[in-house]
Amino acid sequence: MLSDIQIAQQAVLKPITKIAQELGIEEEELEPYGRYKAKVNDKLFQRVKDRKDGRLVLVTAINPTPAGEGKTTVTTGLGQAMAKIGKKAVIALREPSLGPVFGVKGGAAGGGYSQVLPMEDINLHFTGDMHAITAANNLLCALLDNHIHQGNSLNIDPRRILIKRCLDMNDRELRNIVAGLGGRINGVPREDGFVITVATEIMAILCLASDLMDLKRRFGEILVAYTYSGEPVYAKDLKAEGAMTALMKDAVMPNLVQTLEGTPAIMHGGPFANIAHGCNSVRATRLALKLADYCITEAGFGSDLGAEKFFDIKCRLSGLKPSAVVLVATVRALKYNGGVPKADLSAENLEALEKGVANLKAHIENMRKYQVPVVVAINRFLSDSDRELQLIEKTCADCGADFAMTEVFAKGGEGGKALAQKVVAACEKPSNFTPIYSGQLTIAEKVETLAKEIYGADGVTYTAAAQKALKEIQALGGDRLPVCVAKTQYSLSDNPALLGRPKGFQITVRDMKLSNGAGFVVIYTGDIMTMPGLPKVPAAEKIDVTADGVIEGLF
Amino acid sequence: MLSDIQIAQQAVLKPITKIAQELGIEEEELEPYGRYKAKVNDKLFQRVKDRKDGRLVLVTAINPTPAGEGKTTVTTGLGQAMAKIGKKAVIALREPSLGPVFGVKGGAAGGGYSQVLPMEDINLHFTGDMHAITAANNLLCALLDNHIHQGNSLNIDPRRILIKRCLDMNDRELRNIVAGLGGRINGVPREDGFVITVATEIMAILCLASDLMDLKRRFGEILVAYTYSGEPVYAKDLKAEGAMTALMKDAVMPNLVQTLEGTPAIMHGGPFANIAHGCNSVRATRLALKLADYCITEAGFGSDLGAEKFFDIKCRLSGLKPSAVVLVATVRALKYNGGVPKADLSAENLEALEKGVANLKAHIENMRKYQVPVVVAINRFLSDSDRELQLIEKTCADCGADFAMTEVFAKGGEGGKALAQKVVAACEKPSNFTPIYSGQLTIAEKVETLAKEIYGADGVTYTAAAQKALKEIQALGGDRLPVCVAKTQYSLSDNPALLGRPKGFQITVRDMKLSNGAGFVVIYTGDIMTMPGLPKVPAAEKIDVTADGVIEGLF
Repeated sequence: MLSDIQIAQQAVLKPITKIAQELGIEEEELEPYGRYKAKVNDKLFQRVKDRKDGRLVLVTAINPTPAGEGKTTVTTGLGQAMAKIGKKAVIALREPSLGPVFGVKGGAAGGGYSQVLPMEDINLHFTGDMHAITAANNLLCALLDNHIHQGNSLNIDPRRILIKRCLDMNDRELRNIVAGLGGRINGVPREDGFVITVATEIMAILCLASDLMDLKRRFGEILVAYTYSGEPVYAKDLKAEGAMTALMKDAVMPNLVQTLEGTPAIMHGGPFANIAHGCNSVRATRLALKLADYCITEAGFGSDLGAEKFFDIKCRLSGLKPSAVVLVATVRALKYNGGVPKADLSAENLEALEKGVANLKAHIENMRKYQVPVVVAINRFLSDSDRELQLIEKTCADCGADFAMTEVFAKGGEGGKALAQKVVAACEKPSNFTPIYSGQLTIAEKVETLAKEIYGADGVTYTAAAQKALKEIQALGGDRLPVCVAKTQYSLSDNPALLGRPKGFQITVRDMKLSNGAGFVVIYTGDIMTMPGLPKVPAAEKIDVTADGVIEGLF
Repeated sequence: MLSDIQIAQQAVLKPITKIAQELGIEEEELEPYGRYKAKVNDKLFQRVKDRKDGRLVLVTAINPTPAGEGKTTVTTGLGQAMAKIGKKAVIALREPSLGPVFGVKGGAAGGGYSQVLPMEDINLHFTGDMHAITAANNLLCALLDNHIHQGNSLNIDPRRILIKRCLDMNDRELRNIVAGLGGRINGVPREDGFVITVATEIMAILCLASDLMDLKRRFGEILVAYTYSGEPVYAKDLKAEGAMTALMKDAVMPNLVQTLEGTPAIMHGGPFANIAHGCNSVRATRLALKLADYCITEAGFGSDLGAEKFFDIKCRLSGLKPSAVVLVATVRALKYNGGVPKADLSAENLEALEKGVANLKAHIENMRKYQVPVVVAINRFLSDSDRELQLIEKTCADCGADFAMTEVFAKGGEGGKALAQKVVAACEKPSNFTPIYSGQLTIAEKVETLAKEIYGADGVTYTAAAQKALKEIQALGGDRLPVCVAKTQYSLSDNPALLGRPKGFQITVRDMKLSNGAGFVVIYTGDIMTMPGLPKVPAAEKIDVTADGVIEGLF
């Protein structure tokens, strides 16, 4: 089979104006970026705002493993398959971050015959949203340090600055720095550091804002520092929010692209799924629901992180109501969860699968707690045995979930028709979406609910630092907000080594941070790497471009 | 009169597809970015490459003063005026940097009724070229530090790293930092710092590269560091140039926009005019010459920096042949050069003007040394007296330059018709463009030629550091390259306090740097600020955006 980039480069794309036309988007509502990318402007939002919503389908997964589950590929393939069974669907995806492209992973826009195109552009600068976020974030930081340098009338404590500069680059050298060196005219010396752009609160805000003015209001609410006397300092105290919003006036418009089979895809925003909520923008999802009968969207990592935040943060804050959940797994990943090493995953192993299937079972049960119908999608591999697949099918039936196999990687939409039929049927079932916790609970009560109901923990313990942070955040009104748990994606617990369905553990909260503009409280259950590094042999070494401008080495 | 942004926002723009059509650009040669910006791709270059060139007109100026000369405004107005007198012209300009927009100066795309539009977009992210440069530069830096972190097989000396990370932001806090702190997994501690994006060698290379493959070759040639044993390390040793070029595949395409009067403007690249050569890209200028009968372009700062580099670096390396030079001055700026304080510039003062006119005279004489006809353009103010204007006109006649007054700020192209007529006439005069020094001279001989012939110095002295740097650069083959003098823009000398036409001084060379990818040797005659800071009350505080997405406060 061809590589992803080979398949992508052999595809004949429709002009984006054609894709827009097919969706009923009018010419003055579209802002083309080259021939195959576009943004859609506010005129479209205004025109369609009173339409009836389509059905919202969330694609999530079991805990990720090195075996790979293919969540974005299934999301894309499912969107394509909907057209094959005569349904009108739009895919709503996160846009990839640039930095990781040069590290280990290469591109990220689906795979095989279920890709979003043009994959090179999407993986490089796309329409500039990440760069706009970088600029808005770094302007805020520059204004803050300039304020201190120019006399510090707000009395900001340089040891208690909460925001960091960012780059969309894997650059470990910038994780911890001392800035402002070189004497009086060159700033104020202080400890500082950079995060990757997608880890900024600006990104989280973009994905939760309802429009440009809501974006500006939220920017103003970002908690940037404390004063020497412990008072909070917000971005609005630096008069930063207007200029930051000016930098984001195009970024707030969702991006329109297409899949290999010409299915429209709206890609917009892409926050981390640990320190932020891990899904594309509310604006993109809302728009997709106005433009099609089905909006297929996804959330980051496994359902314990991504889907939970999709439901408890994104849907809660925006009023979105999902109609069905697709839970992606592979036989190989479930065997890995059952203790099989990566090298041995191709051999049939029913015993290990039985053990590993506990992970799938936990995710199904968790999703059913939100009172939304669940369909399990098994991404099929040649090495999967019939007995293995039967075992999974039986598990699904026992847990009250539908089940379908997909071959969207190898066959595109054609390989996802069975899944599409199941999803359409699930959307007709009664759905009574309810978040897992009430907004009225305290922060600690919300965390406890997640720990017990979703992670399967016995309880929660707090470090002294976390207790101190909790008090500060409560004093600033944080109890009214949903929580956003930063936890390892590899386990249902907070220990990445505990695969399958761990029992008898406590979740340890080490710290908390108020993302006041985004509107949630980040709960740290471990160290979260917010600035990745490059590996010994970076993918960048193999990326190249020909005289004709054709990109090579983005796999 | 209305403010620049008010004029800009009241303008009715033609769709960029229309501007392209009028220039004979075909649909598949244009890559639209929204409705009013576009890039032009290589198909256009290929189709027009054998056409006869139009006339190349360079707009430069006297030494800049706080009074303001309006060079970009004259360039734009002259382009508009060419249409008014029935000539087909394209303007080729630098694209503005984002960082300074939030500092003191606001926007930078001409002024009054001679502006390039859409000014908000041009001043904010435009088509993303600056962001691409930022990413390419920072990828190179990340690869370099990652190499050292991962074992340093090239034996790079972390104390002798020559490249710096960049941001397109005025951020003094990042001028001097210590990076790589936090222990073994977080990089290698070393002194470091950031420059503003336009000060990077990547920007200089973009503006000198003939095509994508030349860009890649030049990226590979960037001298990034020395080893512990003093050997040079190039970007190609890090296998960085392919991925860097992939990041620049769109940025290498020139941008097409329009003026207030619908004159096509190609904006592309914008390097510093001290540590780099200060003009738009060779590709943009070449293209403009293929698309119109006149290409009106400009260079940074005064003619001693911008025009000199335009001739001795850009034209020398690319084979461009200018047909005429326009030298912009104002009565006010010349009086300032004659010692009048800024507050008193409105009063007639022939004595001061006589003294100050020496500066204009020097610039005319310098330009004539390149054997290109010179037209002086006086940007007229209401306060200018007839006797003052006559004095300047006589000076021009004495020096063999043509003379015209312009009112392009207040009247647009209509106010530049006299200048346009003079420029057309000048282009018919014999032009025998010759760089001021031969490429065969040594670095020291080249610097001496500039010092004596252009700056009016008695000679050149070198610090010990500069002598050491000279030897290293000569050892790497630097003698074959043109020199790029980083000098104050405010004086013909290297002392910003010496206005008018200073005499009896030495130029002091303090350091040198090999810009090996760009292909020149930077000669430092003073400290050049490569990362600006924000002022006490940054322009950002007043920049805002309305619910309709209209930008305010960009003046």
